[in-house]
Amino acid sequence: MPEQLRIAVIGASGYTGGELLRLLSLHPKVKICQVVASSKSEGLSVSALLPNLAKIIDVQLSPLNVPNIAKEVDLVFLSLPHTQSLEPVAGFFSHKKLVIDLSADYRLQNPQVYEQWYQTTHTHPDLLQKAVYGLPELNRSAIRKSQLIAVPGCYPTVAILQLAPFIAQHFIEPNSIIIDAKSGVSGAGRSTALGFHFPEAHEAIHAYKIATHRHLPEIEQGLNHLISDSDKTTSSPISLMFTPHLIPINRGILSTAYAKLKAATEQAGIENIYQQFYKDEPFIRVFPQAESVNPRNMRGANFCDLSCTYDPRTGHIITSGAIDNLVKGAAGQAIQCMNLMVGFEETLGLTGPGLFP
Amino acid sequence: MPEQLRIAVIGASGYTGGELLRLLSLHPKVKICQVVASSKSEGLSVSALLPNLAKIIDVQLSPLNVPNIAKEVDLVFLSLPHTQSLEPVAGFFSHKKLVIDLSADYRLQNPQVYEQWYQTTHTHPDLLQKAVYGLPELNRSAIRKSQLIAVPGCYPTVAILQLAPFIAQHFIEPNSIIIDAKSGVSGAGRSTALGFHFPEAHEAIHAYKIATHRHLPEIEQGLNHLISDSDKTTSSPISLMFTPHLIPINRGILSTAYAKLKAATEQAGIENIYQQFYKDEPFIRVFPQAESVNPRNMRGANFCDLSCTYDPRTGHIITSGAIDNLVKGAAGQAIQCMNLMVGFEETLGLTGPGLFP
Amino acid sequence: MPEQLRIAVIGASGYTGGELLRLLSLHPKVKICQVVASSKSEGLSVSALLPNLAKIIDVQLSPLNVPNIAKEVDLVFLSLPHTQSLEPVAGFFSHKKLVIDLSADYRLQNPQVYEQWYQTTHTHPDLLQKAVYGLPELNRSAIRKSQLIAVPGCYPTVAILQLAPFIAQHFIEPNSIIIDAKSGVSGAGRSTALGFHFPEAHEAIHAYKIATHRHLPEIEQGLNHLISDSDKTTSSPISLMFTPHLIPINRGILSTAYAKLKAATEQAGIENIYQQFYKDEPFIRVFPQAESVNPRNMRGANFCDLSCTYDPRTGHIITSGAIDNLVKGAAGQAIQCMNLMVGFEETLGLTGPGLFP
Amino acid sequence: MPEQLRIAVIGASGYTGGELLRLLSLHPKVKICQVVASSKSEGLSVSALLPNLAKIIDVQLSPLNVPNIAKEVDLVFLSLPHTQSLEPVAGFFSHKKLVIDLSADYRLQNPQVYEQWYQTTHTHPDLLQKAVYGLPELNRSAIRKSQLIAVPGCYPTVAILQLAPFIAQHFIEPNSIIIDAKSGVSGAGRSTALGFHFPEAHEAIHAYKIATHRHLPEIEQGLNHLISDSDKTTSSPISLMFTPHLIPINRGILSTAYAKLKAATEQAGIENIYQQFYKDEPFIRVFPQAESVNPRNMRGANFCDLSCTYDPRTGHIITSGAIDNLVKGAAGQAIQCMNLMVGFEETLGLTGPGLFP
Repeated sequence: MPEQLRIAVIGASGYTGGELLRLLSLHPKVKICQVVASSKSEGLSVSALLPNLAKIIDVQLSPLNVPNIAKEVDLVFLSLPHTQSLEPVAGFFSHKKLVIDLSADYRLQNPQVYEQWYQTTHTHPDLLQKAVYGLPELNRSAIRKSQLIAVPGCYPTVAILQLAPFIAQHFIEPNSIIIDAKSGVSGAGRSTALGFHFPEAHEAIHAYKIATHRHLPEIEQGLNHLISDSDKTTSSPISLMFTPHLIPINRGILSTAYAKLKAATEQAGIENIYQQFYKDEPFIRVFPQAESVNPRNMRGANFCDLSCTYDPRTGHIITSGAIDNLVKGAAGQAIQCMNLMVGFEETLGLTGPGLFP
Repeated sequence: MPEQLRIAVIGASGYTGGELLRLLSLHPKVKICQVVASSKSEGLSVSALLPNLAKIIDVQLSPLNVPNIAKEVDLVFLSLPHTQSLEPVAGFFSHKKLVIDLSADYRLQNPQVYEQWYQTTHTHPDLLQKAVYGLPELNRSAIRKSQLIAVPGCYPTVAILQLAPFIAQHFIEPNSIIIDAKSGVSGAGRSTALGFHFPEAHEAIHAYKIATHRHLPEIEQGLNHLISDSDKTTSSPISLMFTPHLIPINRGILSTAYAKLKAATEQAGIENIYQQFYKDEPFIRVFPQAESVNPRNMRGANFCDLSCTYDPRTGHIITSGAIDNLVKGAAGQAIQCMNLMVGFEETLGLTGPGLFP
Repeated sequence: MPEQLRIAVIGASGYTGGELLRLLSLHPKVKICQVVASSKSEGLSVSALLPNLAKIIDVQLSPLNVPNIAKEVDLVFLSLPHTQSLEPVAGFFSHKKLVIDLSADYRLQNPQVYEQWYQTTHTHPDLLQKAVYGLPELNRSAIRKSQLIAVPGCYPTVAILQLAPFIAQHFIEPNSIIIDAKSGVSGAGRSTALGFHFPEAHEAIHAYKIATHRHLPEIEQGLNHLISDSDKTTSSPISLMFTPHLIPINRGILSTAYAKLKAATEQAGIENIYQQFYKDEPFIRVFPQAESVNPRNMRGANFCDLSCTYDPRTGHIITSGAIDNLVKGAAGQAIQCMNLMVGFEETLGLTGPGLFP
Repeated sequence: MPEQLRIAVIGASGYTGGELLRLLSLHPKVKICQVVASSKSEGLSVSALLPNLAKIIDVQLSPLNVPNIAKEVDLVFLSLPHTQSLEPVAGFFSHKKLVIDLSADYRLQNPQVYEQWYQTTHTHPDLLQKAVYGLPELNRSAIRKSQLIAVPGCYPTVAILQLAPFIAQHFIEPNSIIIDAKSGVSGAGRSTALGFHFPEAHEAIHAYKIATHRHLPEIEQGLNHLISDSDKTTSSPISLMFTPHLIPINRGILSTAYAKLKAATEQAGIENIYQQFYKDEPFIRVFPQAESVNPRNMRGANFCDLSCTYDPRTGHIITSGAIDNLVKGAAGQAIQCMNLMVGFEETLGLTGPGLFP
């Protein structure tokens, strides 16, 4: 375990890269050595892109040169647009660096599924075998031993966490799942587009990419992993519905998931399943009331808040899950993985409460 | 048909009452004769409560005195809190006035269902038989002949309109319906409470009253009416899931509804069902893309925008419906009913476009 | 006076052009014959750009061809970016059309001032003599006789209206004026830029272009016109401070203006000055309390709300003025000018109340 | 210097008390021993009031019993409504505790000024002599030696910091100062009222308490302290204008202050005054452009960002200052004072960056 871990952050001009830097500045055992943004910002200070970091992080932005960076750091975070991570991840991996990739490029284990949904050939299918899906609550021991982490997408993080206990324990009909998720605008990234122009996105809400969003196969993959091998022989894989919505908040996802129970139960039993499944998890908070699950309660914090309601009229459960899409849905989860990979305490640097209000 | 219809609005201190006054001020054939608010505002001008109406409506607020008001007007709108409409509706009805009630008190035709969900005895169950559910797209001819209209709730308006074509034509499994709806804060009314205090509701979203919201039996009643008698003998009534959410916008509801089709189809056929079913409706707009259905496109207007997506992977349809909760979800729909009752053109005074942005 | 005025709107892809179309759709005596947007939207329907106008305005977008348009219409509104109005305004003017320009190109009567602030040569300085500044409350008779109107900017509209009574009556020290104005994001137009990206502009406020905003010379010109010729010989022209701010609302400007009185007075006298000066104005509302002046009270309406506070400790007045920047600050005022030019009633089509909430 | 400082927080149901707890949870050398809220929440957990603190602070709420609390803690923070701090501050002071009061009760050194503005008799005028105004940048050495701190109000913090360098160096005309400040809604506290109901405060802005806000005498007192004794004999005290506005953001103040310079200067000189005056201050950030001063850049952080523009046309400076009203404007500043009083490093526990976006 290093005294001080030397870090590079690739992709600092976006919100996820910025959030990595914000959270890393709070971590007592890392040193931010290299920060890479687009070539046009080379030589600028970090705070030229991220005004909240003025007087906090005083590093000059540099270009993406894999060998040079590899010489100076122990671990690399990449928060690049999808498909742009394929090569640099492979480069840093071959330099024996620890690699934590926040793009989608190494999340889908089947390269054909990747190619179908991202419309591009995966140039390093061999590395997919080595990449570990970085969801510590379900995958902790594999993360500890991994050299390459694919950090889950924001929607899949909350969707998998809210459904996992019920899937793992075979309580729900596998093909009854509907996920209706609502995300703040930072989830769309920092590139401008008319749909994210303030007067268009404010006082507005709409669904988008219904049944075709790229996080759909990732959620299905994550949930199918939870079905034990014996079950897989007897049942077909989970195929679910996923509807994302854009809502006028800066940060946060609220995900409402529906599933039909295999057998009738009662509210108390349902709550208990969450409580038991996540009883030792530092970043999961379970609430009796759905009203308490609200992304406003974790702005900037690494929590995932959960609640589950049983509807005896229809025999379904309705679960509410909330995260900060930039923290537990991206940068915070990435640092949680880093802590596990390196042997730090899992919560190190991540214990700050959310901002309220 | 009167040259000038004399109107009373009861309940002007709330957002729905205010919206009635705003829309009535645009109507060429009505005269606002009486405006009633709570007793503490008696004698004030309307604009003391509703600052947007300064220099527009110059009527003094008066107390709720049924006989006095009945003498001076032809038609009464009541937008009072639930249970408070029971008596004055009956009073105006017995004075032979046309009555349009925007509360829930006369919506549920079965008084036992009302009593179960509103926890109060219905004091005029006989009148329930005479009340017509004021959803013109499905109920136009009954509205024309009615003396008493129960204006639908905001959530039921959009939920019923988005599902009606599929229910009426028996395309969906009746017990597969899930409605995940998102409402702006004006839907909660104008009474202050911590949950609606700006810093608590801004940058926030949460589900509430999951499977227990009072609009649930109203939606089920509306959809069950669409099943023809022959079907009713062979199938059980619809029982659905309804999850409302509070979102940080002033006005508007987006409702996302899911249902399993009885048989596979294709996207084009699905769109066509909407287009055909609503082809002569002046206030329904059908869009090919769910992204186009957004409450920001109808702020202040009486439209209901709809879109339907077919998901071949799961055999479900996912429909998006949007309204302004205060207009098509309350005051606009009430005026649409008034036009029908009195014999005005149905769209009179309601043709204004929404504000954008 | 025509039965039906034939209209062209040039520049429909922006918010001001969209607002012109929305308001014109409410006007009983106009026919929208031609709508021009950028060449890439040629042939599309208006509602492809302006989703609120679906089922309201069904006109195809056409390219900007001055002679063709001139043949078919009586009056042209232009809402083009600054400097792009110079030529088409001259073109329509030479075709003897009534022209109402919403850009800044014909507002500044001195071409050198225009060239200094807009960094471009004015190609039609002769037309500047014929252009009338379209602020009806101060300029009504000239507007009635004009063929070419330069509609005031949004900030100048409210700043001039809030200060005019005190300037015209010589109550304030001419060089003591400070205008601290706050505008919603629609004032910045519909072109995307990082500063207007939702997550950057939401939960944010900043000043910009302090003492260098292009509306500064326009405000000074407007106020200097109010000083009578005799005064001009004895005093230097007004030179003031103007600080605009961007605030996270869609529509609306609140302008807070400060000025030192020449002599002590009292609150009642100050209010009376507003009441008297604007006593016959249909679109000016004067309030005793600054708290009542709020752009939320006139969303979509053509009002300018005003209040003035006297501070006996410092001998200054502090005035609050509010408008909807797209209505009284642009499209509504333009239609008010149209009504005057053509001989319609000044308020025709503009009497709708604002949306609240 | 204690290893671990034992702390009580009185008034945890409000936003300021909540922010104290959030920030104290990040401080490595304090232990939160007692948390007091209103009597009706006695026995609840802190997170019942402050949902962001679930799994972070696990202390039961207790009633306000001065002797009991005094036994268990070294230092007491009080964030009670104005006038309610008078007695408990005196109580804890007499028990020899360190006391940091966030109300206005001990800020105004002249009890008659307090009584005039707060309409109540000051019951401990003797203690006013011992209370130190807790603005570390201007008052550091007195804070170090004090037992009782009156933490400045949010508006005065930014107003005094943005004007201090110019007042202290006699560059501005003392009676030319105008402060036009804009505050988020959390500044109004957590008590509900119609003006802070989401649909009333959203998409809205208004001025309030013009020239009569209680922070006015506090700002004047703070600035008058900066005038040296020799000057005081020759000039009258500063009398300024202060106009607060409510804007639809959760946190943050932007303050725009205007003042006339005694002599012409140039932009570079003006910037240099800020840079020099605050060159060693850890929480002051000076920017060349007013556009960079924005409360969104310091959400949750203890910074005050400043910029100053010189307007050669009018000989005035226009300064922009921004803080998080709950941090540098309240709880963060209180902890900064605590660090100084106890001998901790001044920035301890306060070095976290703001949330962006």
